[in-house]
Amino acid sequence: MGILKGMRVVEGSAFVAIPLAGMTLAQMGAEVIRFDRIEGGLDAARWPVTEDGQSLFWAGLNKGKKSVAVDMKSPKGRELITRIITAPGEDAGLFLTNLRVRGWMDHETLSRHRDDLVMVALLGDRHGRAAVDYSVNPSLGFPTATGPEGSTEPVAHVLPAWDCIAGNMAVTALLAAERHRLRTGQGQEVLFSLKDAAAAMLGNLGIIGEVAVNGTDRPKYGNALYGGYGQDFICADGARVMVIGLTDRQWRGLVKATGMVEAMAALEARLGESLAREGARFRHRAAITEVLAPFFAARKVEDFAKAFDTGGVTWSQFRSFAEAVREDPDLSTENPMFHMLEQPGIGSYPTPASPLSFSEIARQAPNPAPALGAHTEEVLADVAGLQSGEIGALFDEGVVTGPRRHPAWVKAAE
Amino acid sequence: MGILKGMRVVEGSAFVAIPLAGMTLAQMGAEVIRFDRIEGGLDAARWPVTEDGQSLFWAGLNKGKKSVAVDMKSPKGRELITRIITAPGEDAGLFLTNLRVRGWMDHETLSRHRDDLVMVALLGDRHGRAAVDYSVNPSLGFPTATGPEGSTEPVAHVLPAWDCIAGNMAVTALLAAERHRLRTGQGQEVLFSLKDAAAAMLGNLGIIGEVAVNGTDRPKYGNALYGGYGQDFICADGARVMVIGLTDRQWRGLVKATGMVEAMAALEARLGESLAREGARFRHRAAITEVLAPFFAARKVEDFAKAFDTGGVTWSQFRSFAEAVREDPDLSTENPMFHMLEQPGIGSYPTPASPLSFSEIARQAPNPAPALGAHTEEVLADVAGLQSGEIGALFDEGVVTGPRRHPAWVKAAE
Repeated sequence: MGILKGMRVVEGSAFVAIPLAGMTLAQMGAEVIRFDRIEGGLDAARWPVTEDGQSLFWAGLNKGKKSVAVDMKSPKGRELITRIITAPGEDAGLFLTNLRVRGWMDHETLSRHRDDLVMVALLGDRHGRAAVDYSVNPSLGFPTATGPEGSTEPVAHVLPAWDCIAGNMAVTALLAAERHRLRTGQGQEVLFSLKDAAAAMLGNLGIIGEVAVNGTDRPKYGNALYGGYGQDFICADGARVMVIGLTDRQWRGLVKATGMVEAMAALEARLGESLAREGARFRHRAAITEVLAPFFAARKVEDFAKAFDTGGVTWSQFRSFAEAVREDPDLSTENPMFHMLEQPGIGSYPTPASPLSFSEIARQAPNPAPALGAHTEEVLADVAGLQSGEIGALFDEGVVTGPRRHPAWVKAAE
Repeated sequence: MGILKGMRVVEGSAFVAIPLAGMTLAQMGAEVIRFDRIEGGLDAARWPVTEDGQSLFWAGLNKGKKSVAVDMKSPKGRELITRIITAPGEDAGLFLTNLRVRGWMDHETLSRHRDDLVMVALLGDRHGRAAVDYSVNPSLGFPTATGPEGSTEPVAHVLPAWDCIAGNMAVTALLAAERHRLRTGQGQEVLFSLKDAAAAMLGNLGIIGEVAVNGTDRPKYGNALYGGYGQDFICADGARVMVIGLTDRQWRGLVKATGMVEAMAALEARLGESLAREGARFRHRAAITEVLAPFFAARKVEDFAKAFDTGGVTWSQFRSFAEAVREDPDLSTENPMFHMLEQPGIGSYPTPASPLSFSEIARQAPNPAPALGAHTEEVLADVAGLQSGEIGALFDEGVVTGPRRHPAWVKAAE
């Protein structure tokens, strides 16, 4: 049941990155146990929420996990979490976290209970300060380079991109460290920060070089593709489309499909420059857009959609979230990645499985997110190895709780 | 020499996602061999470029790889690439690609030469159509939800976020499939598409649920943090800062550090509602911003920066790319992740290593990107197992080429 079947990962987390990492592993077949405070984690009521305050965000990022609810302030609760994290098993002893690690939950302390523990810890920045996607992004320059040409207002992205990237990097870190352990028996701690993940990408994409070597800054280019041709157009039906001419093939396809072969040759003659080079297309994008605009202004999307697809044009239509969900078959159960999934307390809606399709492993359907504490009893018995009497006492003392509607959800709905 | 020391990965790629995947593996110690056409790949001249047309983008995304230049249209060239991909070795037989796979380079054909081959192939969309970050993003709704409140202009992001996410997912796919092979001896093909990776994230973040369950669409909220409090402010020195009040701790820290405890209590009294709940903070964000704005308008960043840091406020300053590179120590060699690296043909500038720090493995410094064909001879001898006479003949026939300045760079600089 999944390519990582048999692996057990424990997750102490909140928000996007580490929950996404755990969910990614769960969707590949790992047993992922997320532990939370009795009252629910920091992200228990994170928006978007339903009308009665249930978190669609939490449901989305915790699919297929087991949930344990523990009083993390009590010594007994901390001991239980330590036991769950460091429980025996060849494919266990794997811990993902972005919680503030203090004393009892740091790598040094935990590895006293299991010396081959692999722990992946995501920090805000390398100094250990808190940072979130919304704070990292402005500090690195993207909002200043985003938005309409000529505007001086910075525009922050809505997608928590750095979190999504860091979450996937946490999976890489865990699999690489587990691979090393399999060969050497050696566990370890892997540390990284959200800001470093973002700063590295700034370098990887050549943007640091652009500043340091060229001495230039990047202005806003609106919705234009940087360094090649790509532009948005408004069509006769009011719809907006994006067309791409990044590679030679894409560029020739676009010019041909719009019937602009001669018009573009005339433009090249007027400019005294070939548009066969991507840099030339970028520099002359305004002139190219002027040539192409009448084509789109005179047509509805349906007038050219089929010809664009068969002509190999790389293009798409701008849609709002609601339009995308309602109109794009790739976001429906026509796409084998999506299933109508009943999420208890919320309802049934199209829910994605892993985007990865492994040829030798049957593709797993998505599983719902657990109610808080849904697996407390099971995990205390099967993973922590407690007897039913001990478990009953822990429930009675309030050190742990079982499944119920999420208190934070109830609170948000009050 | 890196946690993946001994692993050999072959990469046939262009642009962001798969080159990023290969680079990620190379920075963790894998031997990564990228093959390209004699004239260079589709991304050989990708912007940003230096004044003489050398690609800073290509240099950033191919750090630490080996480069082989082969005539991919000739049967001999194809045979060589097949040999390199399927060469023996317990930790080899790993292939990453986002090229159009036709016949000779598909999994079925390649695995005839090595039946435990692991191949990870990234498509544009699930139908096999081309798609790029610039076309996927508008189709899913983010540009419509991005930008100033009330505006109807869609704003596309500048960060190729989906590519960065998909590249990291390709690493996950490869490590998971290699783990499976280590245990079972079985190779396989892992397929996924850029659009599916993005569509899944739309679901994971709760946005599909928001549409399907709540029946709502998300408007633009400017630079406000969605579902909690987070807002940008202009300070007395003209600088702009982002402050975050997502969690209770962050919110209380912000209110205290700005000296607004009483003012915020007065606002709560006026509203008849507690701002202790994140949803309430989001709904009343305009009123909160009105309370906080005078604090920032009256102060330069330096007047409150230290107090914010010591008071545990989660905040940052908006900077352009150039300002970030020049002013933020986290983007300089003060950060152990960055090294001044001499990239042949370009110069020396701060270059990131892997953001991941493994406690049991010395952190690797970044290595430069190779010149096109820099390792052709070495790889033909050591990996493909050819004799020097055979190699010489292949060079003479033009089936392969050796190191030189990148023709596409030279062309772009003409």
